[in-house]
Amino acid sequence: MEVESLSQHTSRSFSKDLAGIHNLVLTMGGLVEEQFDRAVKAIAEADSELGLGIAESDRHVNEMEMRIDEECRRILATRAPAARDLRLIVAAMKTITDLERIGDETEKIGQLAARLATVKRPSTNFRELRNLTHHVKGMIRDALDAFARMDVQQALEVMKADEIVDEEYEAISRQSLTFMLEDPRTITREMELCWAARALERIGDHTKNICEHAIYMAHGTDIRHSSLTSVESEISLASSARQTIP
Amino acid sequence: MEVESLSQHTSRSFSKDLAGIHNLVLTMGGLVEEQFDRAVKAIAEADSELGLGIAESDRHVNEMEMRIDEECRRILATRAPAARDLRLIVAAMKTITDLERIGDETEKIGQLAARLATVKRPSTNFRELRNLTHHVKGMIRDALDAFARMDVQQALEVMKADEIVDEEYEAISRQSLTFMLEDPRTITREMELCWAARALERIGDHTKNICEHAIYMAHGTDIRHSSLTSVESEISLASSARQTIP
Repeated sequence: MEVESLSQHTSRSFSKDLAGIHNLVLTMGGLVEEQFDRAVKAIAEADSELGLGIAESDRHVNEMEMRIDEECRRILATRAPAARDLRLIVAAMKTITDLERIGDETEKIGQLAARLATVKRPSTNFRELRNLTHHVKGMIRDALDAFARMDVQQALEVMKADEIVDEEYEAISRQSLTFMLEDPRTITREMELCWAARALERIGDHTKNICEHAIYMAHGTDIRHSSLTSVESEISLASSARQTIP
Repeated sequence: MEVESLSQHTSRSFSKDLAGIHNLVLTMGGLVEEQFDRAVKAIAEADSELGLGIAESDRHVNEMEMRIDEECRRILATRAPAARDLRLIVAAMKTITDLERIGDETEKIGQLAARLATVKRPSTNFRELRNLTHHVKGMIRDALDAFARMDVQQALEVMKADEIVDEEYEAISRQSLTFMLEDPRTITREMELCWAARALERIGDHTKNICEHAIYMAHGTDIRHSSLTSVESEISLASSARQTIP
């Protein structure tokens, strides 16, 4: 009886450890989302102070990454997790690396916002960049949601959305080049714009990675470097195989 | 006696597993180094075929990443490593993420080399880029060496070298902007040059990360997001504390 209650206790506190990791990753994701919103606002409102202030909040993101990593290592060393539990820990450790990089790119966007605040704004008022940020923002939100609910289908949707982000980034780069060639006075501004677009494109990539980790966590399949079509058919095959098991 | 030989056997095969991971990471590092050398050659010799061919070898790098990750997860699930052994596995999983990203950036440099092969070369023949690639190449080699020998001191030296890479990258960006402003006909070429320099700067960052993982593996200290000065004093303090233990 004593052994049983001890094992129940261990199992309960282990579940609590795992839920704790899952929550910490989502809290870190929330911090990164907030930081991203501020960077976007700093560009839209030409607010250089807001842009430069992002470095401060990025420190919190970095601290969280180290804290979660430490907690994951503690669980690995003391609980020796296997199967699904191990997948959660591995996915968490990989996800926070991508979140930390999103934080870094967001900090760069903040710095670019500060520089863009000092230049003459184009007649479009950076509308093309606003569309791109809008898409990336949606991707981050939906990826964290897919991670929270371990929702494979939603993770796949976010991965598809990254294709739109890549296309928009390419369009902005081409347009900037055209502007620069037409009017060399725009070179400095358009270069900054290109860097900001590039940072957004990379945030899209990291968000896509988070979806890959969420799918691995929920489904046990490592889908990195696979085409989306092959991933979808593999996952649907595996799901129907599971359903036929009595 | 039977139990003892079984435990010896387990411990021997566990050590083999760990040494296997260490070697696989270094093999993957070797592949990435080769890929980098080809990208650099493609720029220097305006060889577009060589540049575009890098995508093929990047597939091998990606496959290795997935293979090593799988092997690490197998060891975590079946061996429940702790202490130094766990540090090796965690450091390996993080290092291969950075190696894979170096592979990605190198693939991009290959594509840029293919495009740069078609433009009129500047009188400098991209000398400034050659200096930067030379530094980054040295960083990759030394970082892999520090990982191989678990050499904290060398890892710290590589991290210091990244500061030079950052400075050179900034200098190239400024120079490119000047060229574009002086002669708008150079805009397309200088933009490509900037992207290549940026990719090199990022490779420097990933190489620095590898050094952080090597230090964590060898020393057990998570030095991410710390200043180099504080890291050096922390490590030297910890080392002298160890020496005074009888």
